[in-house]
Amino acid sequence: MTNGMVELLADRKVTLNDIVECTVYLETGFNGEIPDTDLILRNIIEILDKREVQNAIRTGIALDRFAESGLMQDKVLEDILMRDESLYGVDEVLAYGICNLYGSIALTNFGYIDRVKPGIIGKLNNDEPGVCNTYLDDIIGAIAASAASKSAHNRLEKSLWKK
Amino acid sequence: MTNGMVELLADRKVTLNDIVECTVYLETGFNGEIPDTDLILRNIIEILDKREVQNAIRTGIALDRFAESGLMQDKVLEDILMRDESLYGVDEVLAYGICNLYGSIALTNFGYIDRVKPGIIGKLNNDEPGVCNTYLDDIIGAIAASAASKSAHNRLEKSLWKK
Amino acid sequence: MTNGMVELLADRKVTLNDIVECTVYLETGFNGEIPDTDLILRNIIEILDKREVQNAIRTGIALDRFAESGLMQDKVLEDILMRDESLYGVDEVLAYGICNLYGSIALTNFGYIDRVKPGIIGKLNNDEPGVCNTYLDDIIGAIAASAASKSAHNRLEKSLWKK
Amino acid sequence: MTNGMVELLADRKVTLNDIVECTVYLETGFNGEIPDTDLILRNIIEILDKREVQNAIRTGIALDRFAESGLMQDKVLEDILMRDESLYGVDEVLAYGICNLYGSIALTNFGYIDRVKPGIIGKLNNDEPGVCNTYLDDIIGAIAASAASKSAHNRLEKSLWKK
Repeated sequence: MTNGMVELLADRKVTLNDIVECTVYLETGFNGEIPDTDLILRNIIEILDKREVQNAIRTGIALDRFAESGLMQDKVLEDILMRDESLYGVDEVLAYGICNLYGSIALTNFGYIDRVKPGIIGKLNNDEPGVCNTYLDDIIGAIAASAASKSAHNRLEKSLWKK
Repeated sequence: MTNGMVELLADRKVTLNDIVECTVYLETGFNGEIPDTDLILRNIIEILDKREVQNAIRTGIALDRFAESGLMQDKVLEDILMRDESLYGVDEVLAYGICNLYGSIALTNFGYIDRVKPGIIGKLNNDEPGVCNTYLDDIIGAIAASAASKSAHNRLEKSLWKK
Repeated sequence: MTNGMVELLADRKVTLNDIVECTVYLETGFNGEIPDTDLILRNIIEILDKREVQNAIRTGIALDRFAESGLMQDKVLEDILMRDESLYGVDEVLAYGICNLYGSIALTNFGYIDRVKPGIIGKLNNDEPGVCNTYLDDIIGAIAASAASKSAHNRLEKSLWKK
Repeated sequence: MTNGMVELLADRKVTLNDIVECTVYLETGFNGEIPDTDLILRNIIEILDKREVQNAIRTGIALDRFAESGLMQDKVLEDILMRDESLYGVDEVLAYGICNLYGSIALTNFGYIDRVKPGIIGKLNNDEPGVCNTYLDDIIGAIAASAASKSAHNRLEKSLWKK
C-alpha cells in the first residue's frame, strides 16, 4: 500500500514507531487527552500512501545516499550535504512540499519540530561520520508534522460538529 | 521609509521594540554570541520597507479590524476571527507569504515562534474581549522570523567567507 | 455539504458551471480525451467541501466586499483593492494556500490560468466601477487549478496502474 | 560573483542568453515597452548571486546527472526522472523554492512559462535519450520567472512613485 516506503525508511534506520513518537511529541499538551497512537499510525500510513509524499521521500533519500557515495561531480554540494550546512535550505523546501498538502497547521508543526528535534530527528541530525541524513531528518519531521495536523483536523472538526 | 507601517503597528499596540524582543528570543542560544539588537532593528526596518510585506500587514490588520467592527456580512467568518479558531489557517498562509521572501530558515523560525508564543505574540494571542488580533500575532511572528533569518544569513555568509 | 459555498459564490455572480468551464479550459489538449465534466464537477464539490478552502473563500470575498463598502480605515489598502493594483500579491498568496493542498500541478495550473484569464476569470478581472473582485478571480482560478490537478492525478494514477 | 553558476549551467548547455530570452518572452506584451535586455541580464545575475538559488541549482543538476549516470540505488526514482513523469512534482517544488524569494508575481510567471515552455525550456523538455533535464527546465523557468518579477517590481514601483 505504501509502495515500499516502510522498507525504504527502515533501510535508513527509521521505523514507523519512530515517526509515531515524534507525532505524539507534537500532539502532547494540546488537548488534555492522551494522543491516540493507533490513530496516529493510521494517519502516517495514509500520508505514506500519497504519491507526492513518496516521491519526496525517494528524492531526499537518493540525495543523502548520493552524498555518502562520494560520487557527486559537484564537490561543493557534496560537502554541504555531508556537513548539513545551516544555510542549505533545499531540504526544508522539499519538506514543505509534503507539509503543504496537509495545510498550514502542518507547516507550523514542522517549524517547531525542526527546531526542537525530538527523538529520531535529533538522532538523525547527529549522525556518525560518513553517514548523511540531511534530507531524512526533515522528511521525518514533515511526515510527523502532517500526521499531527491530520489529528488536529479530525479532533476539531468533531468538536465543531457538536455545537 | 516604511510607508507608515510603524504607526499602523503602534495603532494596534505593537512597537518595534516588541518585534526586536521576539527576534532576540529566536536568535538566543544559536551562536554563543549575544544577539546584536541594533542589527536586528535595522533588519526589521528593511523588512517593513518591502512592499509585499506592507501589503500583508495592511491586509491582516484590516481583517482584524473588520471582525472587531461587527460589520461583516459573513457572520461565520466574523465569529471564526473573533475566536481565533484553531482550524482557521488563512492567517498563517498570509504570514508564510512574508516568510517565503526570506527563505526556508524564516519559515522554520515562524513555526517555532508561532507555537512558543514569546513576548508580544503571547500577549496578542490572549487579547481582551472585543479585540481581534488573529492576523496580527502571525504577522509579528513572520516579521521576527524573517529578521532572525536575515541575521543567520549575514552571520553564516561571513563565516563561510573566512574559510 | 459545501457549507454554503455555492450560495456565497452565486451571491458574487459565480456559478459552479463557470468553474467547470475554467477547469475544462485547463484540461483541454492534455490527453487527447474530451474532459469529463461530470468528474470535474464532482472534484470541484469535493474541493469546496474542504474547510481550509472554505475559509480562504470566505476571507477573500469578505475583503472584496469590505473594499466595496468604502468603510476601510486604511484608505491606501482600499484603493489598492479597488484598482486591483498589479504589485498587490496577497490575493495570489491566499490562492496558493488553496492550490498547495492539491500539489505542485495545481500551482502550475494556477499560474497559467491567472495569466490567460479564460471565461469567468477574465470577466471578474474587468469588473464594473464600484465592484471589487480582486480576491475572487484568484480564488476561482485556484479552485479550477486544483480541480484540474485532481483530474490529472486520477488519470495518471490509473495509467501507472495498468503497467 | 555567481559562484560558478554560469559555468555549471553552460556545462548543461544553458547560456545566460537563453534565460534572458525566456524572461523577454514573459515580459513582452505587458507594458507596451520593449523589454530592456540589459536590465534583465543584470537581474538574472543578481538572482544567480543568491545562495539559496545557487543551492537549488546545484541540487537539481546533481539529481539530473545522478539519474543519467544509472547509478541510483532506487531504480523507481531513476526511471521517473529519466522519463520526466508528469505526476513527479518535486522538481516544481524546488523551483517554487526559488520563485518564493521573489514574491507572488514570480510564482504566477513560473506557472505560465512551465506550461507554454518557450525557447530553451521547450528544448530541455524534449531532451535526447540518455539525457535528463527533469530539474533543469524547471530551474531555468524559475530563474526567468523571478527575473521578470524583479522587472515588474522595478517598473511599477517607479510608476507608483510618480503619482
